[in-house]
Amino acid sequence: MRNIKLTISYDGTRYRGWQRLSGVENTIQGKLESALSGILQEEITLFGSGRTDAGVHAKGQVANFHCQNQMPCQEILSQLRRYLPEDIGIESCSEAGERFHSRLNAVSKTYCYRVWNSDAPCVFERKYVYRLPAKLDDEAMKLAAAYFLGTHDFQGFCSNKHYKKSTVRTIYRFAVERLGHELRFTVHGDGFLYNMVRILVGTVLEVGMGRMEPGAVLTLLSEKNRALAGYTVPAKGLCLMEVQYQ
Amino acid sequence: MRNIKLTISYDGTRYRGWQRLSGVENTIQGKLESALSGILQEEITLFGSGRTDAGVHAKGQVANFHCQNQMPCQEILSQLRRYLPEDIGIESCSEAGERFHSRLNAVSKTYCYRVWNSDAPCVFERKYVYRLPAKLDDEAMKLAAAYFLGTHDFQGFCSNKHYKKSTVRTIYRFAVERLGHELRFTVHGDGFLYNMVRILVGTVLEVGMGRMEPGAVLTLLSEKNRALAGYTVPAKGLCLMEVQYQ
Repeated sequence: MRNIKLTISYDGTRYRGWQRLSGVENTIQGKLESALSGILQEEITLFGSGRTDAGVHAKGQVANFHCQNQMPCQEILSQLRRYLPEDIGIESCSEAGERFHSRLNAVSKTYCYRVWNSDAPCVFERKYVYRLPAKLDDEAMKLAAAYFLGTHDFQGFCSNKHYKKSTVRTIYRFAVERLGHELRFTVHGDGFLYNMVRILVGTVLEVGMGRMEPGAVLTLLSEKNRALAGYTVPAKGLCLMEVQYQ
Repeated sequence: MRNIKLTISYDGTRYRGWQRLSGVENTIQGKLESALSGILQEEITLFGSGRTDAGVHAKGQVANFHCQNQMPCQEILSQLRRYLPEDIGIESCSEAGERFHSRLNAVSKTYCYRVWNSDAPCVFERKYVYRLPAKLDDEAMKLAAAYFLGTHDFQGFCSNKHYKKSTVRTIYRFAVERLGHELRFTVHGDGFLYNMVRILVGTVLEVGMGRMEPGAVLTLLSEKNRALAGYTVPAKGLCLMEVQYQ
């Protein structure tokens, strides 16, 4: 059996998220699996590095699948590009080692969250940014973001109340940058709980709006109570940028 | 009567173009006029600097209108931003001199045309670029573009066969730049005939593909025959960037 690795970009706007759902057509995984099964003439199951929620975008999602068909990767790539809709793009397609698994072997991920922090129109990027014209204190947000760095129990920053597994994660980088009207958050960590990036960004934004002190992050981390953390910012501003492997 | 000037950006994808058409809902001018008439409680006629075709975008369209209502410009701006759809943005709204007319006073315009010159996916910009993965000779295209500079009769680069007025125009700049997978054409001139920018770009692309020599542009300019010039590239790659006034 061959093992093939794909790097995928997608505009999540019109999808129900990455994960195939029974009876539901519009998922990224579903679109890819049906295209691959048609091209390779065998049933393909795709393993993604992780799910992305409805409306979330990706520039570097990684997935792998096994197949028996000997079609060259270059041919699979060009056929996929022909059959997939315009809002799903295949960046690369290559042979992977037989033990490669896109989720189990991922060592870290980088997400980007974009906020349009202005009254000015944002016509061309409107589907990829969260519009929030509020006055924000950048220095306070940078301080708040820095408190998240390192290894913590993120149970209070997760939408799922009953995690069976560990909720401890490590954040390597949490950058807050301003580019013109845009505020861009970049989060790099060894893994993320359900909705965690969106809650982290929501919490930092609440600090930016003066509803919370930067130091309150320490309390939130120790209290482990979702109700105390910031709101879950909308999916449309979020993009999975890269999945890192060893 | 007040005279008010607007600078407007729009994603032309779902519109039938700038100009209001009787019985047709989705034009940019139509949307703006009905929003303004509602906000100001009087019938507003908007004068655009020029029409843009169905599917063409703008980052700096200029228009003006007269009104009697004394609502401050800042209030008109914020109400417009509230009522307009997300794909039409108002960049600015200001009082203009009583003699200002967005079309008659325009001295030049700058258009940008974007070509995605790669097999690679272009998921996020897909509605704003023309995808053309062909191999292109950049140097030949730059030479061809340079032949258009200056004052010429552009009758052969226009979709309308029966122009009553002069078809002589002056091109001040015609840049061909490569930015990663993208090829970007910037055209600055004192005015443009119907479809002229798209035919100019189509002609330069034909030179890039080796179907025509750069010097053939001289013949095309002197022959004044639309059938000899290049094809009309798709509307989606075109954007009106700026209208210049004295």
